[in-house]
Amino acid sequence: MWARELAVSAPGKVILHGEHAVVLGKVALAVALDLRTFLRLRPGAEGRLSVSLPGVGVRRSWDTPGLRALWGRIAADFDESKSPSVEELDALREFTGIAAGASAPDSLATLAFLYMCLAISSKYGDVPSVDIVVWSELPTGAGLGSSAAYAVCLAAALLMVCGAISCPLQEGESTARWTEEELALINSWAFRGERVIHGNPSGVDNAVGTWGGALRYQAGKITPLKRVPTLRILLTNTKVPRSTKVLVAGVKEKILKFPAIMNPVLDSIDAISQECQSVLETMPANPSPEHYPVLEEFFDINQHHLNVLGVGHPSLDRLCQVTASHRLHSKLTGAGGGGCGITLLPPDTSPLAVEAAKEDLCACGFECWETKIGAPGVTLHSCSSLSARVLHGLAQS
Amino acid sequence: MWARELAVSAPGKVILHGEHAVVLGKVALAVALDLRTFLRLRPGAEGRLSVSLPGVGVRRSWDTPGLRALWGRIAADFDESKSPSVEELDALREFTGIAAGASAPDSLATLAFLYMCLAISSKYGDVPSVDIVVWSELPTGAGLGSSAAYAVCLAAALLMVCGAISCPLQEGESTARWTEEELALINSWAFRGERVIHGNPSGVDNAVGTWGGALRYQAGKITPLKRVPTLRILLTNTKVPRSTKVLVAGVKEKILKFPAIMNPVLDSIDAISQECQSVLETMPANPSPEHYPVLEEFFDINQHHLNVLGVGHPSLDRLCQVTASHRLHSKLTGAGGGGCGITLLPPDTSPLAVEAAKEDLCACGFECWETKIGAPGVTLHSCSSLSARVLHGLAQS
Repeated sequence: MWARELAVSAPGKVILHGEHAVVLGKVALAVALDLRTFLRLRPGAEGRLSVSLPGVGVRRSWDTPGLRALWGRIAADFDESKSPSVEELDALREFTGIAAGASAPDSLATLAFLYMCLAISSKYGDVPSVDIVVWSELPTGAGLGSSAAYAVCLAAALLMVCGAISCPLQEGESTARWTEEELALINSWAFRGERVIHGNPSGVDNAVGTWGGALRYQAGKITPLKRVPTLRILLTNTKVPRSTKVLVAGVKEKILKFPAIMNPVLDSIDAISQECQSVLETMPANPSPEHYPVLEEFFDINQHHLNVLGVGHPSLDRLCQVTASHRLHSKLTGAGGGGCGITLLPPDTSPLAVEAAKEDLCACGFECWETKIGAPGVTLHSCSSLSARVLHGLAQS
Repeated sequence: MWARELAVSAPGKVILHGEHAVVLGKVALAVALDLRTFLRLRPGAEGRLSVSLPGVGVRRSWDTPGLRALWGRIAADFDESKSPSVEELDALREFTGIAAGASAPDSLATLAFLYMCLAISSKYGDVPSVDIVVWSELPTGAGLGSSAAYAVCLAAALLMVCGAISCPLQEGESTARWTEEELALINSWAFRGERVIHGNPSGVDNAVGTWGGALRYQAGKITPLKRVPTLRILLTNTKVPRSTKVLVAGVKEKILKFPAIMNPVLDSIDAISQECQSVLETMPANPSPEHYPVLEEFFDINQHHLNVLGVGHPSLDRLCQVTASHRLHSKLTGAGGGGCGITLLPPDTSPLAVEAAKEDLCACGFECWETKIGAPGVTLHSCSSLSARVLHGLAQS
């Protein structure tokens, strides 16, 4: 029986370079964003499993024998090639009373929780009697990997409670991480959870949430970068809604219309991702300030290319102009057409310039976070080491 | 002896696509701009040759025997591979009292005039007793081919006066053009005049001034396009001064620094020039409105590429934004870094939108002309057919 009160966190992700081009087989770089999702794990009443997700308004509790009775309907053996089956999801919907076709965040988050809980507990242990609260600094639906961070936290906590991975946090320590093998197990189960939510995710988001830092993604192959620096950024949400599907289709159409003009642009984006990878891998051993203008130039060039692909938006132009007026360089990140942009903050950026840029961005109606990329992956925390802000978020349940 | 009063005009040029990339062996499209240079030719006092260039403050007159005496020092045989020699230019400087190294427009225009006059007259006839006035709608030094338009007008007038080409204007006609063979002769002599002014010009500007329309330029080879439409544009001069040499060097440096990123951008620009050529050649036979959005898309893409090459400028960003706010598409033309931009005016553009765009551009401190591209090349006019504005310009002398 689980007796400790602990917390697990996992980072969000942003695409540094290669969004859209990655769909067409080019290299993308995804980096961990230091806006994190936190999961608090507490011993629960014997025979009760509770989950609370204050961000999406979920507060549910089940008898563990009732859950155990569902084991037979959820496959515990993990098969990478398969998404959760229609039968499995139907069984969970029936049990929870969630309507078929319900795709609101609260429904999907509940289904993913139960799916992971049942599959992990039936394979590695027993349905745990614990209270789980998950709260996130990440906005949902903004392409920042919030569902993957959720799935990574759940996978780590459930695998630990069921004994499939260790509890590496020693008494008196604030944080601890798992071994490489344990991380691989967390990642594979997080991917399974992501599939409940997203159907056919690329696996990039959960990999970033698990390993942190930065990783290279190309044609289905995910390669974590060896050592990467932590870079300060502004993350700005223009709050302009967009459809990733429509944007991706628009890019494809443009390439079919003008292949000789557009294919070289994809090649150039591919080269930016690769050059950027090489700069990032050089930086930890050689932390010279001369790398930053190069990273800024890559931002500028790729932002132009993304406009050429047709995924820009006046709000993103505005974002780039506002930050340029403070001598800062920005690009859209993710699908574009609105959504989020990132702005590099080189070490010599004055705090006044950062504050002024943030104020100007907020004055545009944007939401703006001063944060970092290259953040650590899934981490185990003592609850006493969490900030008041995080504790407050978790206490909303 | 020349007895008629006539006028010759030649158009300026803008680069439609391929600026900068052309230096690196890619295709560029140059088009004739309907801002023209006009030359008025009148019988002069017997034994006097006069030239007046009100735009650059030149008003000179010489005895024809004195000019004839210089024949021996100017080679009449045209050699495409050679620029005018130091000795030839020294002889002219000595004769005119222009200091060695003087590079102001008035000095260069005077030298080019005398050089062409002596070389043409010694080869084809006699030094003519005529009054020549040249006035231009083109701003000088803005990359719009004003010196080439000047040289084309001079070549046509001098070749005609000396009997090397015909005088195709029949009594009662307003305008006339020369035959293909005559145009080739005009172009080769205009190139020679351009060399006095520019040292080592590409030959594109005088070819556009001679043939008009549009031409393709690649690796030294100039090919006039067969049939091209006349397109309405706004030509805007940001009046931001720039150094073409510095800009060209900056592009080369960027390519050397990031070849894998930059070379595909040049390939994409090359493809834009070629696709645009194909659209332009399709338009006269199939004047469908659907071509215009394609031409506008090419403008937008190339403007992004030129920014990637590093030849953009905040004034050009402003120009693009202002015209975009009236749903019009613009790109820089020529060297960039300031200088001029062009804005396409599709046939369905409302006159109100054009006026509003012009007003907004002028409010930025820019100079703006509503004009056309694909204009006719060198043309002979009866003076009575010239507009009051042109006659007024020519009368300033």
